[in-house]
Amino acid sequence: MEVQKRNTCVVPSFDLTTGTQGNARVNVLDRWMARKFLHALGSPPLRLTLWDGTAIAAGTSSSPGGMILRDRGTLWRLLKNPLLHFGDDYSAGRIEIEGGLVPCIESVYRAMQQTPRFQRRSQPRAYRRHQPRLNSLNGSRHNIHHHYDIGNDFYQLWLDAEMLYTCAYFPEPAVSLEDAQRAKMELICRKLRLQPGQRVVEAGCGWGGLARYMARHYGVKVQAYNISSEQIAYARQRARDEGLAGQIEYIEDDYRNISGRYDAFVAVGMLEHVGPDHYQQFGQLIDRSLVRDGLGLIHTIGQNRAAPLSPWFLQRIFPGSYPPTLREMMALFEPYDFSILDVENLRLHYAKTCEHWLNRFETHREQVREMFDDAFVRAWRLYLSGCIANFQVGDLQLYQLLFARPGNNHIPLTRRYLVAP
Amino acid sequence: MEVQKRNTCVVPSFDLTTGTQGNARVNVLDRWMARKFLHALGSPPLRLTLWDGTAIAAGTSSSPGGMILRDRGTLWRLLKNPLLHFGDDYSAGRIEIEGGLVPCIESVYRAMQQTPRFQRRSQPRAYRRHQPRLNSLNGSRHNIHHHYDIGNDFYQLWLDAEMLYTCAYFPEPAVSLEDAQRAKMELICRKLRLQPGQRVVEAGCGWGGLARYMARHYGVKVQAYNISSEQIAYARQRARDEGLAGQIEYIEDDYRNISGRYDAFVAVGMLEHVGPDHYQQFGQLIDRSLVRDGLGLIHTIGQNRAAPLSPWFLQRIFPGSYPPTLREMMALFEPYDFSILDVENLRLHYAKTCEHWLNRFETHREQVREMFDDAFVRAWRLYLSGCIANFQVGDLQLYQLLFARPGNNHIPLTRRYLVAP
Repeated sequence: MEVQKRNTCVVPSFDLTTGTQGNARVNVLDRWMARKFLHALGSPPLRLTLWDGTAIAAGTSSSPGGMILRDRGTLWRLLKNPLLHFGDDYSAGRIEIEGGLVPCIESVYRAMQQTPRFQRRSQPRAYRRHQPRLNSLNGSRHNIHHHYDIGNDFYQLWLDAEMLYTCAYFPEPAVSLEDAQRAKMELICRKLRLQPGQRVVEAGCGWGGLARYMARHYGVKVQAYNISSEQIAYARQRARDEGLAGQIEYIEDDYRNISGRYDAFVAVGMLEHVGPDHYQQFGQLIDRSLVRDGLGLIHTIGQNRAAPLSPWFLQRIFPGSYPPTLREMMALFEPYDFSILDVENLRLHYAKTCEHWLNRFETHREQVREMFDDAFVRAWRLYLSGCIANFQVGDLQLYQLLFARPGNNHIPLTRRYLVAP
Repeated sequence: MEVQKRNTCVVPSFDLTTGTQGNARVNVLDRWMARKFLHALGSPPLRLTLWDGTAIAAGTSSSPGGMILRDRGTLWRLLKNPLLHFGDDYSAGRIEIEGGLVPCIESVYRAMQQTPRFQRRSQPRAYRRHQPRLNSLNGSRHNIHHHYDIGNDFYQLWLDAEMLYTCAYFPEPAVSLEDAQRAKMELICRKLRLQPGQRVVEAGCGWGGLARYMARHYGVKVQAYNISSEQIAYARQRARDEGLAGQIEYIEDDYRNISGRYDAFVAVGMLEHVGPDHYQQFGQLIDRSLVRDGLGLIHTIGQNRAAPLSPWFLQRIFPGSYPPTLREMMALFEPYDFSILDVENLRLHYAKTCEHWLNRFETHREQVREMFDDAFVRAWRLYLSGCIANFQVGDLQLYQLLFARPGNNHIPLTRRYLVAP
C-alpha cells in the first residue's frame, strides 16, 4: 500500500520542564498529588499506577481498571488541567490504560458528574470558550478542513460502505452498522415524508450518502452543500458511478449560500459546526428556503445543559464544534414561527454507532499508523472512546428534530407513518 | 332538572355611551370604520353587516361567511380593541356570525397572521401581560376555582365519561371521543413504561381519570394533586365506587406541596396554569420527586413564539393561563440536567377534541342555558370555537414531552414500545 505519512498536528511537542524524570522514584509529594488528582475527579473507582509501579486507589475501591502514568510531568499536567492534558499525554503514550479505555473514561465521567468542580452548570456563552474560530465563513472552512479533509481513504477504513459519519439507527441492537445506517436514512426520509419529484436541500452532506439514498429510494432531486472539498469530490464521483448524477447536485459551498425553494430541508450532523451565534441566521436561511407546506429535519448532537466541549477535543479533533441544548436550538425556529412536530433522542444509538466505528478503527489501526503515526492512532482511539462514554453516561444527546410551518395541516395525525408498511 | 342559575361573571355590563343607537342609520363614518376594522384584521374574506343591513366586504371577496354587528358601539369597540371586545360583544349577543363561528374565526386568524399589527413576535415577558394573578399559591387557587369549580354537572354534559378535559389522541380520525381519550391515557402510560407496583405522582389531576386508568390497567399506586375542590370530590367518589381507592390518593393541595419519591411524574394539561415564573421551581420539585431511573411526562398546550393569550380569554375563561414555547419549557429541565427523550406535537388532535366538545356542548346548550344564562352559552361556544381555530391555524400547539435523568440507560432504543403489542 502506498501511503504517505500525513501531518495532522494531533499532538504537540511538550516542554517537560516540570518533570522529565520518567524513572525517578515516586516520593511523598507524588503520592499526595496522585491522591489529589483522583479526589479532584470525584474519586472514580480506578487504580493510578505511577512510573515506578507505585499504585494509588481512590478510597477503598478494588479497581477493575486503572491508569498508568509514565512520568512525573504527566501527573503534574493532569492535576493542573485534566480535560486538556489527558488527551495529549494519552496520545503521546505517556498514559496507558488498564481494563479498557471506554470503561475507564465512563467511570471518570460518572464520578465527575458528582463532583462540584466538574458539575455541568448551564453557561449561556459556553460555546465561546476554547474556540479560536467561531464559524465565520473563513473559520468554518478552516475548521471543516481540519477534520474532514484528512483523507477519504482513512475514513473508508472504518465507516460503513455509504460513508455516513453520523449517528446510525439500530432497529434491533444486533443489526450491522451498514443496516443501521440505512435504517437511519430511511427514518429521516419517512419523517420528511418525501415524495417522488420533490426538491430537497441538504446543508452539510458529508460524503453524500443521504442524498444518494433519497434520490435512489424516494425519487427526489437533491441539492447538497458541503465545504469539504475531499468529501464533495468523493460524493460527485459516486453519484456519477451510480447513475444518480442527474438527480443530485453536490455544491462545494457554505450553507449560508443556499438558494432556491425546497419541499424539504435536512441537516444531519451539521448543526454541531454552526455555533449558536449563527442559529438565527441559519433559521432565516431555512425560512427562505422552505415552501409553505415543506418539512425540515435537523439531526444533531446536543446537550442537556450549555457547556463547552473539552479543550482537548476542540483543539485536536473538532475545532469550532458545539452541541446545542434544545433551548439554544429554538433560536433556529422561534423567530420564524416554525412548529416543532417531533423530537427523538437517539443518544444510545450514537454510543452504539461509535462502538462500531471504534471496533473497525482498531481492526485497521496498523494501516492508520502507516498513514499517520502512533500519536494519531491513540488520539482517534481516545476521541471515539470518549464519544462512546459521553453518550453512555448521558453528557451528550442526539436529537432528531422535525419541524414545519404553523399552518401546515398536511402533517400526519399519528406516528404510524414511521413504521415500515 | 333542578338547576340553579349560577353567576359566573362571563359578560360585564357595558357603558354604551359610544353608541346605543341600535337602529340608527349607518353613515359615512360608520362605513369608513367598518372598512378600517376589516383592514386592520388583514382583510379576511368576511362580509361585515351593520345594524341597518349595510354590508361591507374586505376587498373584492365574495364572502362565504360574515359578521353582523347589532349597533354602532360594538363597531367602535371592535375597532379599538378587537381581541378584548369581540368576545364580550359576541357573548352579549351584539355580534352574530353567518356561515359558522369556527370558519369565521379561522379566516380572521389566518388574515391576522399576515398582518403586521398582529404578527406574533416573540415577547420574552409575554405571559405577564393581561395577567392580574400570576399563579402564586393564592392566585392559583383563585384562577383554578374560576374555571374548574363552576359545576361538575356542567362539565358532565359535554366531556367524555371519564371526564378528561385535555387533548385526546385519535389513532384514526373517526374514533369516538371516548375511545380517543382512552387512547391518550394508554399512550401516556406507554411513554412512561409503567410497571405494576410503581409509584406515580400526578400534578393537577382534573377529575382523576388518568389516575384511575393507570391504577386499573397498569397496577400502579398514584398520588394525584389538585386544588379544585369540586374535581377532587368527584375523583374520590369515583375511585371509591370503582374499587380503586386503595391505589389512588387524591390530595387537595397545590403541586408545590408534592412530597415523596416516585417512579413516574406526570402532568397533563396543568403546565398551562403554572406560568413561566414558576417553571424553575416546578423543575426543582420534579427533580426531588423522581427516582434515579424515573420517567416524567408533561402534556401541555404550547406556542411557537412567546405571546400572551387574548385578553378576553384571560379575563373571562382561563385567568392566569399561559401556553409556553419549548424554549420556555426548558427552564423546567435544563437546571436539573434532565434529558428530553421525546417530544410529540398533537396540535391537530386538540382541534379534533375541541370539535367533539363543541358538538356535545351544542347538543346540551339548552341545559347549559338553564344552569347559567345565554351569555354563558355564547361565551363558552366562542371559547371552544376559538380553540378549534387556534389549533387549526397553528397558533397553538400541544406538546407531549417525555424526559429522564441523563444517566438513565433503561430507556427504549426505538419507539416500537408505543405501538400496541
